[in-house]
Amino acid sequence: MWIQRRIVLEARPRGFHLVTDEIERAVPELRELELGIATIFMQHTSASLTLNENASPDVRRDFAAWFDRAVPDGADYFVHRLEGPDDMPAHLKTSLTDSSLVLPVADGRLALGTWQGIYLCEHRDHGGARRVVVTAFGERRD
Amino acid sequence: MWIQRRIVLEARPRGFHLVTDEIERAVPELRELELGIATIFMQHTSASLTLNENASPDVRRDFAAWFDRAVPDGADYFVHRLEGPDDMPAHLKTSLTDSSLVLPVADGRLALGTWQGIYLCEHRDHGGARRVVVTAFGERRD
Amino acid sequence: MWIQRRIVLEARPRGFHLVTDEIERAVPELRELELGIATIFMQHTSASLTLNENASPDVRRDFAAWFDRAVPDGADYFVHRLEGPDDMPAHLKTSLTDSSLVLPVADGRLALGTWQGIYLCEHRDHGGARRVVVTAFGERRD
Repeated sequence: MWIQRRIVLEARPRGFHLVTDEIERAVPELRELELGIATIFMQHTSASLTLNENASPDVRRDFAAWFDRAVPDGADYFVHRLEGPDDMPAHLKTSLTDSSLVLPVADGRLALGTWQGIYLCEHRDHGGARRVVVTAFGERRD
Repeated sequence: MWIQRRIVLEARPRGFHLVTDEIERAVPELRELELGIATIFMQHTSASLTLNENASPDVRRDFAAWFDRAVPDGADYFVHRLEGPDDMPAHLKTSLTDSSLVLPVADGRLALGTWQGIYLCEHRDHGGARRVVVTAFGERRD
Repeated sequence: MWIQRRIVLEARPRGFHLVTDEIERAVPELRELELGIATIFMQHTSASLTLNENASPDVRRDFAAWFDRAVPDGADYFVHRLEGPDDMPAHLKTSLTDSSLVLPVADGRLALGTWQGIYLCEHRDHGGARRVVVTAFGERRD
């Protein structure tokens, strides 16, 4: 059994955003999988995905604080500056996190740990809507 | 052919630990796959996985040295401090490495390069046992 | 339908190199997949893969600039120095990027975004040729 679905995640401000529910709702067919894999793929180079703590908003705020220090906007050693001071850092932050997540599916659900949630990492000041492709496959439930 | 197995990796001290053999032993059915994929998924947000050099313990020591400098315990720009000075760095180090590994399987074995090993990255001082889900699938050997 | 192919990418200088076309040409059978997944796996611990901007060479130059600052050659806190000042940084840069990429396939093509390309990240001064395993699977086109 194969599922492939293209999702558009609405524009969000720069930062780290919890989107687990939004993605699960967009792929209700996951419920039909007894056992399988789901992959979530971001079709952009200045926004990305990662798995992390799904409870405290402070964690997502601290993610932004760390990444903005580690890859500073408009650093003087960047040559690629035409698209603004947040563009080259956005590319690097994308490669430091993930363009695709690969998640086990069991009993019709993503087999995430208790505290794991899916983050949309928006690295641009004005990134706009983001396109994601979810591909899932496995054995169908009876 | 589908295999899904939940493994508990025993508690280890903070640092980077080679667990290739332990994972292979826990999934003996991999030997039945002629050709396929194995995914290894960490169900936590303060421990992670990565592939790296399987020989010198110095490499794993230097991993700890670099990550502890890049994401310092108790940095003053972190707001999320309730769970201790190693907690927020643990979340960030998890997203800088991997929550899931995706490995080719060929002739009943993980098709790793000669020097590649699976690291369990324990980012907490007292992380406890860690749950991992291995999902493998592919074509069965004759 | 399953495809598994071992590719050798020729030796390249240290830096970030666009290899999308080279990989697609090496796996022409992708055209036969209606819907599926392709995984690209690097069998080394001092070279890696990532997805990023496929247009401006400046982006790839700035990747090198940032990574060389973030993980400096011959840093005095590294113990593992026997294989040269670029060796330990190469291992770390490998884990900060990806050893495997997981890409959706649709209508016989990798379903990349408009600006996404596959980077070979060569972290050694003299890394030599690099071995990659492409594994793809899915539903065959009629």
